[in-house]
Amino acid sequence: MPFPPGETTAGQVPQAEVRRRHLSVLLRHVHAEGAVSRSELTRATCVNRSTTAALVGVLAGAGLVREEVPRTHRSAGRPSPVVRPVPGSAQVIALEVGVERIRAERVGLGGEVLAERTLLPPPGGPTGFEDTVGRLAGLVGSLGGPSTAGGRCTGVGIAVPGLVRRADGLVRFAPNLGWTDEPLAAALTGRLAPPWSRVPVAVANDADLGALGEHCRGAARGCDDFVYISANVGVGGGLFCGGRPVPGQRGYAGEIGHMIVNPGGRQCRCGARGCWETEIGTDVVTEAAGLRVPPDHSLSGVVEAAEAGDERAARALDDAARWLAIGLGNLAAVLSPRLVIFGGGLQDIYEATFDRIEAYSATTGLARSRAPYTHRRSALAHRAPLVGAAELAFAPLLDDPLAACRAAAA
Amino acid sequence: MPFPPGETTAGQVPQAEVRRRHLSVLLRHVHAEGAVSRSELTRATCVNRSTTAALVGVLAGAGLVREEVPRTHRSAGRPSPVVRPVPGSAQVIALEVGVERIRAERVGLGGEVLAERTLLPPPGGPTGFEDTVGRLAGLVGSLGGPSTAGGRCTGVGIAVPGLVRRADGLVRFAPNLGWTDEPLAAALTGRLAPPWSRVPVAVANDADLGALGEHCRGAARGCDDFVYISANVGVGGGLFCGGRPVPGQRGYAGEIGHMIVNPGGRQCRCGARGCWETEIGTDVVTEAAGLRVPPDHSLSGVVEAAEAGDERAARALDDAARWLAIGLGNLAAVLSPRLVIFGGGLQDIYEATFDRIEAYSATTGLARSRAPYTHRRSALAHRAPLVGAAELAFAPLLDDPLAACRAAAA
Repeated sequence: MPFPPGETTAGQVPQAEVRRRHLSVLLRHVHAEGAVSRSELTRATCVNRSTTAALVGVLAGAGLVREEVPRTHRSAGRPSPVVRPVPGSAQVIALEVGVERIRAERVGLGGEVLAERTLLPPPGGPTGFEDTVGRLAGLVGSLGGPSTAGGRCTGVGIAVPGLVRRADGLVRFAPNLGWTDEPLAAALTGRLAPPWSRVPVAVANDADLGALGEHCRGAARGCDDFVYISANVGVGGGLFCGGRPVPGQRGYAGEIGHMIVNPGGRQCRCGARGCWETEIGTDVVTEAAGLRVPPDHSLSGVVEAAEAGDERAARALDDAARWLAIGLGNLAAVLSPRLVIFGGGLQDIYEATFDRIEAYSATTGLARSRAPYTHRRSALAHRAPLVGAAELAFAPLLDDPLAACRAAAA
Repeated sequence: MPFPPGETTAGQVPQAEVRRRHLSVLLRHVHAEGAVSRSELTRATCVNRSTTAALVGVLAGAGLVREEVPRTHRSAGRPSPVVRPVPGSAQVIALEVGVERIRAERVGLGGEVLAERTLLPPPGGPTGFEDTVGRLAGLVGSLGGPSTAGGRCTGVGIAVPGLVRRADGLVRFAPNLGWTDEPLAAALTGRLAPPWSRVPVAVANDADLGALGEHCRGAARGCDDFVYISANVGVGGGLFCGGRPVPGQRGYAGEIGHMIVNPGGRQCRCGARGCWETEIGTDVVTEAAGLRVPPDHSLSGVVEAAEAGDERAARALDDAARWLAIGLGNLAAVLSPRLVIFGGGLQDIYEATFDRIEAYSATTGLARSRAPYTHRRSALAHRAPLVGAAELAFAPLLDDPLAACRAAAA
């Protein structure tokens, strides 16, 4: 494999590029970990102590981190200074456009949530794309100016339940929002007032961002091969392989809810028949159990009713377990992940029917032979896509801290 | 993302490590391209001309490459020397254990096939694991000694149709061979005579190696996101994302033939019901058409019979098209590849029923919205897994050319 561009012999990497990379590694580490000793940073970057100290000084000079001498320490010798992110120094706006609500957070470097808003749809239900963009613009404005006394806002990230063309933030298809080919990034930029309109807007699929959020700050920290499954009205997925997201062509990978598992089955909102989400979508399961869909799309009500002896609920649970086993088996066959994270109500089903799912899986020799995957409930719950949207918005700053600071200050 | 280990500031990468990497990049390039000008190598490595010349000199000194002054050249000035791999200098043995035959090749650096053998099963059909290992050992011996006048053999790579634990070459499950938990790498090493027994043996899934072969020397050159589908008796897959193979946990990813697409369907050899390979396996389709399975498992006979008006063949073709569309749609939903390569008879079906497959796919809004993937016939045909097995065996040499040469000479 050839080296990435710019990575050549020792003497030939331009010094500025070396510095950019080291600042990036340092700032990412501090952003992810919150507060780290300078000696820990020295280990993380493999740069010597004095170089690390100088690089931390550069970030501190830009206002992005702060060094403190810890009050107490156990080991002998001079204590290693602790480096912390300055949450106010660089901030982003994270937005999630859901079917039932819009969520917004203003997030500081290091991941601290500085402000948040939730917007329910207007009376009469969700309106069209233009109206949603107007509401998003209003939310962004309500979370403080792009440049406040507290610091600069360096980006906006948006999570959307649909296929998103990453390059330009065009939402190709979001069946549950009723959107086709809506230029979300450009439309929001167009609606924002002048100082805001220079802040870059990035858009991605909500489950992809949920996976990113869980990898940075949730249940997948330290796990490099996993599938994140989001499930409420629809079923989405975010995939990581070898520590990196699997985007697929133009960012469209991970539409696991649209694997066809039951070719003669129900019509899906996507137009096909028998998609996985038509069998295990939380609303489908709840309605099959004869229950009302709760506001959080949890399936704990179905599980409780089944366990209390309700036959219709028990049948719905049984069916859901079988379809869950089939879809999980398909993902395991194709990707063989180490970890599956349930980001929605499916965890309730999975836990309640674990024995049935295992028994079903055991019918295939492949499942017996593979190492089993671990499963975990999302650590971030409904916030996972928002956390990922913030990380998406922080990416340019973390890649090139000084350039992003200059751009934001200009 | 932190730098890979050892990749630090300019002055701090150990010089030996820098040299190892540059030699690796150069040798990989020459191995893949066959004959390249030194100026092309300078571009590929981003190292300056004199460093490139010195590094090529090191590889030439180890006998791995040869420099020649081209006889004719068009541009003015001194012609750039052409660097060629020396096929005899380092060689590997590539083996493929198939259901119906064992194939073996002795391959030189640069990919030239120096010798090949095919072994049909003994009368009475394939025998057990120990017997197969004995036959493999015999084949290896018949292809020349580990150290011949021509050069040294630096590795053995084996392709197997089953789940293989990469770390130790244990075949976990190969239903079509009837193997469960067979320690293939260790068993072959144990059978080889002393000079051979020091040559490392690596084992991997045949479709994974088919994908590797197509990426290095076939239809996926230059394409970093693709699915390779091998189909004859079984259906296997090899996945690439972002230019790298997707191994999954322990190397078990890509078992696409065992996606369940028809839960009420036929019993699969894996033990489950309704796996994709029970619907589109070439033997299944041929038998559904009422025809005899040809030795190459091609489906062209089914297509011809259907086009000639045979109703049973036409129905079989129709069914196969529908199941092919469903499985390809599932792979597109999960992975959204740029390219699908057909490594077996399925290409016949795909080409003959392209319109039907497209019409079926068009029922889902996701397929309409995604960029379509390209499809190509395998460029290496039945040789793809063998080419990949050779690349698997060449990997240690290409990663660290001088260390591998030293080890082989010791």
